[in-house]
Amino acid sequence: MDERIVPVPAGASKELRAFIAKKEIPPPIPVPKKQDEWLKFQEASDSEFAKEALRLAKVFESSWESVEIGGVPCFVVKPKEIGQRFKGQLLVHIHGGAFVLGGGEASVAEAMWVADACKAKVVSIDYRRPPLHPFPASIEDTVAVWKEVIKDQAPESTALFGSSAGGNLTLATTLKLKQLGLPLPGALFVGTPATDLEKTGDTWYTVQGLDHLGQYDGFIRGCFEAYVPSKDFSNPLVSPIRGDLKGLPPTILISGTRDLLLSDTVLMHRALRKAGVTAELHVYEGQSHGDFGSSYPAPESLDAQKEINLFFTEHLEPQARK
Amino acid sequence: MDERIVPVPAGASKELRAFIAKKEIPPPIPVPKKQDEWLKFQEASDSEFAKEALRLAKVFESSWESVEIGGVPCFVVKPKEIGQRFKGQLLVHIHGGAFVLGGGEASVAEAMWVADACKAKVVSIDYRRPPLHPFPASIEDTVAVWKEVIKDQAPESTALFGSSAGGNLTLATTLKLKQLGLPLPGALFVGTPATDLEKTGDTWYTVQGLDHLGQYDGFIRGCFEAYVPSKDFSNPLVSPIRGDLKGLPPTILISGTRDLLLSDTVLMHRALRKAGVTAELHVYEGQSHGDFGSSYPAPESLDAQKEINLFFTEHLEPQARK
Repeated sequence: MDERIVPVPAGASKELRAFIAKKEIPPPIPVPKKQDEWLKFQEASDSEFAKEALRLAKVFESSWESVEIGGVPCFVVKPKEIGQRFKGQLLVHIHGGAFVLGGGEASVAEAMWVADACKAKVVSIDYRRPPLHPFPASIEDTVAVWKEVIKDQAPESTALFGSSAGGNLTLATTLKLKQLGLPLPGALFVGTPATDLEKTGDTWYTVQGLDHLGQYDGFIRGCFEAYVPSKDFSNPLVSPIRGDLKGLPPTILISGTRDLLLSDTVLMHRALRKAGVTAELHVYEGQSHGDFGSSYPAPESLDAQKEINLFFTEHLEPQARK
Repeated sequence: MDERIVPVPAGASKELRAFIAKKEIPPPIPVPKKQDEWLKFQEASDSEFAKEALRLAKVFESSWESVEIGGVPCFVVKPKEIGQRFKGQLLVHIHGGAFVLGGGEASVAEAMWVADACKAKVVSIDYRRPPLHPFPASIEDTVAVWKEVIKDQAPESTALFGSSAGGNLTLATTLKLKQLGLPLPGALFVGTPATDLEKTGDTWYTVQGLDHLGQYDGFIRGCFEAYVPSKDFSNPLVSPIRGDLKGLPPTILISGTRDLLLSDTVLMHRALRKAGVTAELHVYEGQSHGDFGSSYPAPESLDAQKEINLFFTEHLEPQARK
């Protein structure tokens, strides 16, 4: 490809254009080498993201409390308003952050956005992460929480969701539940998911330089290797696109035209459809990785909230508290 | 954006990878200046495309006959096999070609692909084109054909479809029918549509150099200006994204991650959803403009056929011959 000037997308809303215009591609991040370097990086990053979560708590007029569920630390997020549809129940959230980051109180950022969308309480799982706890610790934790949550509410009334690595873990957790013969969620929301940890997706190449996430090579690959130290990404619980997707619950997928993970998203959409799963794709103009959430309150972000609420409302069984 | 090497997409099927690997970005085409230059170019192009239609007739074991409907030349395409679902009725096709090209016998290429998908007869409209007949001649013709077709079969049992400029004209025709208070189709298939003839779509920029369609500036813009000599693209019948989409029929939209018109497609998907229209988006990995059809028989092309047939089968009223 030649060099070229790519203007801010004219077809995006005024608010999204302003958001995109402000974003810069960060310089490549050096990959931590030793465990203590990882831990130091992780701590600094978590603390930075936790500040953002506090800022968002004001925006959404949300609050949260720490709880332990199935031995796993979690946060229960309470939105400004709880609606009739999801009153007295929880939606279940798995945060993103390349498997390594985004934990602690940072977990709740996306949970608040979806809690606001659905006027529902959300439990966000602060699962164990590398470098101390590589794969499959995270999935052991999400499964443990799931098993507890469905003691109190019907699985078919319960959504599981997450974006980026959280989208991966949402799919991987569901595949693991299927392997274990446990009840599956009633619906999934999977945002800009990493569905193959190898660099197979075309948009890793085609929108590099446009997506403020940066690039696969270097830090992101480093996080994936920290998650799977064997570097064998062929396990479907690591790369869910390689899994047997038959019987998965209805799934809504969201991405953007400048998303490095657009290919991972559309390939999963196709694979789900092929497996006979109800799967809906929504792609936002000009958006990079995760902008559907982080551009809030741009009209496109409100629109994505509306789609998620609509999808959960349509596909989750009306609450049947056990 | 920097220069970079973009490999053939690893996540595409073997057949689609071979198709993509063979494709080259053609050098920019000079824009014809005078009417006789346009006519000469058009004639040569139509004749070239007609050869491709003949080749496809063998591939699909299809045949067609010329008919006149409402005073407009058309082709009725008969697929290899006619199924029970659409027996005794027609689907209605509007061909693409940047409003200027793709007419005459070339019209039938996509019609055969959909006829094969749905095991249905398709009527393909050989509408009038620039330079002799700019906007709104094409839409006058498609409306004239529509009015005749629905004398013989219920509109709600009848699909209207097309790709590229044909996707634009499918939407514009439906908007025109709405303006005229005439019955609308029961469902639309809109492939990689030009929904805004101005260069507002982000992917005109972001995938330039990857999509073998080439680029907006130059020949494509020239075709759009031949279609609308005033160069005022604000009319919703010219740029349907600017129209009032309320009440449009259920619509399936198809594009690819390397499609110059991916943005036009996803923006229309969002606009339809916002207007309360049932609209489904399918995006294929690594595909450029129109590859969903032209890569036939790659598995992704068969998959797109399946989606279109499924959508029409679900959303068209079972045939109620008048």
